[in-house]
Amino acid sequence: MVEYENASSEVRHIYDEIMQTRQTDYVNNFWRALAHDPITLKRTWESIKQIMAPGALDPLTKELIYIAVSVTNQCGYCIASHTASATAKGMTPEVFSELMAVIGMANETNRLAAGYQVEIDARYKPV
Amino acid sequence: MVEYENASSEVRHIYDEIMQTRQTDYVNNFWRALAHDPITLKRTWESIKQIMAPGALDPLTKELIYIAVSVTNQCGYCIASHTASATAKGMTPEVFSELMAVIGMANETNRLAAGYQVEIDARYKPV
Amino acid sequence: MVEYENASSEVRHIYDEIMQTRQTDYVNNFWRALAHDPITLKRTWESIKQIMAPGALDPLTKELIYIAVSVTNQCGYCIASHTASATAKGMTPEVFSELMAVIGMANETNRLAAGYQVEIDARYKPV
Amino acid sequence: MVEYENASSEVRHIYDEIMQTRQTDYVNNFWRALAHDPITLKRTWESIKQIMAPGALDPLTKELIYIAVSVTNQCGYCIASHTASATAKGMTPEVFSELMAVIGMANETNRLAAGYQVEIDARYKPV
Amino acid sequence: MVEYENASSEVRHIYDEIMQTRQTDYVNNFWRALAHDPITLKRTWESIKQIMAPGALDPLTKELIYIAVSVTNQCGYCIASHTASATAKGMTPEVFSELMAVIGMANETNRLAAGYQVEIDARYKPV
Amino acid sequence: MVEYENASSEVRHIYDEIMQTRQTDYVNNFWRALAHDPITLKRTWESIKQIMAPGALDPLTKELIYIAVSVTNQCGYCIASHTASATAKGMTPEVFSELMAVIGMANETNRLAAGYQVEIDARYKPV
Repeated sequence: MVEYENASSEVRHIYDEIMQTRQTDYVNNFWRALAHDPITLKRTWESIKQIMAPGALDPLTKELIYIAVSVTNQCGYCIASHTASATAKGMTPEVFSELMAVIGMANETNRLAAGYQVEIDARYKPV
Repeated sequence: MVEYENASSEVRHIYDEIMQTRQTDYVNNFWRALAHDPITLKRTWESIKQIMAPGALDPLTKELIYIAVSVTNQCGYCIASHTASATAKGMTPEVFSELMAVIGMANETNRLAAGYQVEIDARYKPV
Repeated sequence: MVEYENASSEVRHIYDEIMQTRQTDYVNNFWRALAHDPITLKRTWESIKQIMAPGALDPLTKELIYIAVSVTNQCGYCIASHTASATAKGMTPEVFSELMAVIGMANETNRLAAGYQVEIDARYKPV
Repeated sequence: MVEYENASSEVRHIYDEIMQTRQTDYVNNFWRALAHDPITLKRTWESIKQIMAPGALDPLTKELIYIAVSVTNQCGYCIASHTASATAKGMTPEVFSELMAVIGMANETNRLAAGYQVEIDARYKPV
Repeated sequence: MVEYENASSEVRHIYDEIMQTRQTDYVNNFWRALAHDPITLKRTWESIKQIMAPGALDPLTKELIYIAVSVTNQCGYCIASHTASATAKGMTPEVFSELMAVIGMANETNRLAAGYQVEIDARYKPV
Repeated sequence: MVEYENASSEVRHIYDEIMQTRQTDYVNNFWRALAHDPITLKRTWESIKQIMAPGALDPLTKELIYIAVSVTNQCGYCIASHTASATAKGMTPEVFSELMAVIGMANETNRLAAGYQVEIDARYKPV
C-alpha cells in the first residue's frame, strides 16, 4: 500500500481531496492499494466523488444502495467499509435491519422468478 | 399460471390481499406462477408484505434497494417489475439515473477491492 | 449450430453417445452450439457423462443440484433444460416446489450472513 | 452477538425452538447476530423451519441444495455451517465429492451456454 | 432511446466521438439508452475510452477480458455486443473457443476452491 | 489435505505431473484438498492441463482471463493463486493495472445494460 509519505505529488493531491471531502484524516486501505495505479486511482475517485455527492438521492440512501450491491456480491471489504460509512452518515440500527431484510428478500425472489421461469408482464415491459 | 377464476379459496384470499395492499386490480405474473405452490405463495407474500411496509425506510427507498439487488443479479423479471413499482411510487428520472450510477460504481469497486486483495481496515471491523 | 448431417465423424460419434446415454433421438441446442469446437464438446460431454452417472447420489438428485446452481446464476438456458431433464427423471410438482423454496431461502440467508458479517463458528471450521 | 443470558424472552423463545428442533444445545453465530433484529430473527427462523422440514425432499437432500447455492455464491459462512449440518445429517465423503463435482460442472456449463448464446430449445420452453 | 436527431448538442458530441473512435457510423443501443442521463453517458464513455485504449494490453485482449466478465455475470446484452466487438477486432473461432473453455473452467474451479474451503497458500498471500 | 507421503500412487502420479508441467516442486493447497476425491482430482487436472496449454491464446492471456472470472466471482483463493501464476508468467504491474480497470468497468457496464433494460441490437444477434 502506498503511504502518504512515499506518495507522488499526484497521489498526495487525491489523498488530500479524499480526506477533505470526507472530513477525516484517514485514507482507507482501498485507496492506498489503488494508488499503485495513479490513473485508476484518479478516475475511480473522481467517479465516486461525482456519483456519491448529494443529488436527487441523499448520501445516506446512496450508501444503502452501495451496501445492497456489496452484500449481494459477497464483497467482504466493501460490506465492512460501506457499513462504517453509512453508520457515520446516520444509519440507525432500525434502518440497518430493514436494509438487510429487503436485500435478503430481493435475493430470494430473484431466484423464485428465475426458477419458475416467469415471463415479464406486458405492462412492465419498457415502451 | 393460476388465474383468479381457477384458484382455490386459499389462493384467492392472497390475490385479494395483494390487490388491496397495492391498490390495484392486477395480480402480476410472479404471484400467478408461485400460486402452483400455495405454501410458498403464502409465505413469500407475508414476508414481502411485512418487509416492504413503511418503517424506518420509506417504501420508495425499499424499491430502490430491491432494484439494486435485482440489477446486480441480472434478474430480468425483477428489474422490470420493480422498476415499474418504483415508478408508481414516485421514482423520478433523476432518481433512476443516480440509482443506476451508484449500482454501476458499486459493482466496479467491489471487483477492484477483490482484485487488489485489499484487507479490511482495523477500524472497519465489527467489534 | 452443427446439425448431424453436416457434422464430422468425430462430432457424430459424440451425438450418438449423447442420444444413446439419454435414450432419446434429440440432441439439444447446447451440444449443437458447442460442436463448433469439437475439443470442448468432447471434454464437456465426457465430464458430464461421468459426473451425472448414478453414484452415491441418484441422477434426479444431481439434476436438482444442477437446477439450484443454474437458478442462482440466472442462466435461462440451463434452468429450462435441466428443469426438463429433472421432470423426465421423475421430479414431481411437490419436489419442484420444495426445491425452489430451498434455493430461495439459501439465497436469502447467504446475504444475511454476509451483511451481518457473521464470523464462522469455531466448531464449523475445517480441521 | 446476542447471548442467551442477555436475550429478551421473545428471542430466548426462538433460541429454545432452534435448539429443540435441531436437538442441540448450541445456537450458532448466524442466529445470535440476527437476534439484534427480533422481527427478522423470527421470520427467518419460521421460514427455515418450514422449508427445511422433511417433505417431498428429505432433510439431507435439502442441505445439499443449500450447499450448492452457498458455494455458487461464495458465501464462506454458509458453506462452513451447511457442510457441518449436512455431515451431521449423514453426508458421506462420497456424497460430498459428487456434490462438489456437480456444482462445479453446472457452474461451468452455465457459462458455456451463456457465452455461446444458446437459444432455448422449443421443447424446453414452459407451456 | 435517444436518437441523434433528437439529441442535445452535448449528447451529439459524445455520439460523434464514439463513432469516430470506433470508426463506424453506428451508435449502439447501450449508449442511446444511457443518453437519457447525459452525466452518466459522458462519464461512462470517457472511462471506457481511457480503459479500452491500447496500452500494456492490446484492444483485442481487453475485449476478451470484457467477455469473460460478461459471461460470468450472465449479461446477455454485454455478451452479444462484446462478442461482436471482439470479432471486429480479429477474434478468430479458435480464440473464441479457447476463451470459452478458460471461462468455463475458471467458473468451475472457483466453486471447487470454495466448496472444499481451501485456505490460501502462504506463498500466494500478498506481502 | 493429502500430502505426497500419504498419497496413493494414483494421486502421486498426478502430483508429479502437476509439478513437472509447472516446473515447480510445490503442489498447492487446491490440489491437495481435491485429492480426497481422486476422480475429481484427475478429471480437473486433465481439463486444466488441456485448457491452459499454449494454443491460439498464450498462457499469460489465459491467466488474465482466469483472474477476470475469479475477481468477478469474489473467489479469494482463486484470485490469490492465479495472480501468483500470472506474475510467474510475466504479468507486469502495468498489465495488472489495466486488467483490473477492464474487469471493474465490465462489471459496471454489465449492470448499466441490465438496469436500463437495453435490448440487443439487431446487428449483434447471432445469426
